[in-house]
Amino acid sequence: MEKKALYEGKAKIMYTTDKPDELLVYYKDDATAGNGAKKGTIMEKGIMNNKITAFFFDMLAKKGIKHHYISMPSDREMLVKKLDIIPLEVVLRNVAAGSLAKRLGVEEGTKMSVPIVELYYKSDELGDPMINHYHIKALKLATQDEINQIETLGLKINDILTKYLATKNIDLIDFKLEFGRDKNGEVILGDEISPDNCRFWDSMTHEKLDKDRFRRDLGNVEDAYKEILRRLTGEVR
Amino acid sequence: MEKKALYEGKAKIMYTTDKPDELLVYYKDDATAGNGAKKGTIMEKGIMNNKITAFFFDMLAKKGIKHHYISMPSDREMLVKKLDIIPLEVVLRNVAAGSLAKRLGVEEGTKMSVPIVELYYKSDELGDPMINHYHIKALKLATQDEINQIETLGLKINDILTKYLATKNIDLIDFKLEFGRDKNGEVILGDEISPDNCRFWDSMTHEKLDKDRFRRDLGNVEDAYKEILRRLTGEVR
Repeated sequence: MEKKALYEGKAKIMYTTDKPDELLVYYKDDATAGNGAKKGTIMEKGIMNNKITAFFFDMLAKKGIKHHYISMPSDREMLVKKLDIIPLEVVLRNVAAGSLAKRLGVEEGTKMSVPIVELYYKSDELGDPMINHYHIKALKLATQDEINQIETLGLKINDILTKYLATKNIDLIDFKLEFGRDKNGEVILGDEISPDNCRFWDSMTHEKLDKDRFRRDLGNVEDAYKEILRRLTGEVR
Repeated sequence: MEKKALYEGKAKIMYTTDKPDELLVYYKDDATAGNGAKKGTIMEKGIMNNKITAFFFDMLAKKGIKHHYISMPSDREMLVKKLDIIPLEVVLRNVAAGSLAKRLGVEEGTKMSVPIVELYYKSDELGDPMINHYHIKALKLATQDEINQIETLGLKINDILTKYLATKNIDLIDFKLEFGRDKNGEVILGDEISPDNCRFWDSMTHEKLDKDRFRRDLGNVEDAYKEILRRLTGEVR
């Protein structure tokens, strides 16, 4: 398979493949936080995130959620459908943490009375600012119909993941999704679902099992990623 | 009329009256910017804002917009209906300026392709953060129906004011509204509409005729307020 790096992000590299509507994602061990202000490496993160993402995508497909994942040719590689990515970070939140706790002035760990959807404009230059439906339409990033689909899908995915993770003694605090248009123009789920872009807390101890361990220098970063993979798939690394 | 100060804000004092469902607003000359970081006085601002607000409220009433304004007992006083204020700053924007230009990374003066509504949580402590419908419902600040009414009213008021001000050679760049529930629970317009919370630019010269002259130390602050009053009512101060 001939491959050419199309784009290198903070945690992944996208390659072209011999099929025009398929891309190969390579998961790196690089970790960044604070919009690149903090940099480091989380050993085997690429392998764990690839496997965790594949697991979640397979599970979501069974519940009727369409996504870009096709197959996993290797431990660090994921074959995906090429999408026209909508430049929004779609954040779902069940419990206040991080920027939401600061924004609303509530203590981290406060359960929200309803799930919250937040939309951020994907722009490193601007620091990914929070925006609303009007900004999105003014910037022509997506139509009102697409925004509605994205929010509805986000809430449905949140519902599926929250219920599933509860059976693994994991509280889904919040997570970030990205969506794109497939070759038919349909809005489907892209990117990844992993401890890099989710907050997972142990249901009993409230121990953080996600990238906050790296962001906040809490130690045992690799162990947290391994623990999530183990609870989901049984695989011990 | 017996009056008791109920609340003193940065630019106004609210007094009780002998009627339980009416309040008296006293317009001060005090000016602040940057959430109180900058303080000053704009001579006769209270008089001008009172008269400008009364003018806009009268005009909006003729177009079917319900508001809290009853009468103007003196140059600095406005009798209003007592409202249960919804703690949101409702910002309407036609042209990028201030925080919107920064948020979207566009030059100040860029015309938006559609009017933008932004909702901010009124909280000095938190610095009035921008929030969305989900935050509002989670915080129980307003119902979805009330949010829809507020946005629809905001856009209608924007349309009326923009068209009217164009006849006075004023571009309405953006402005902030506040709404509250009257004694019947109906959502109606409160607060003020003045150069304190609107950006008015001369249509020809693009000269700023609003509080940005104070915020940005542009000089001729009083003259800008006087000019708006003159163009609206013909009154020369």
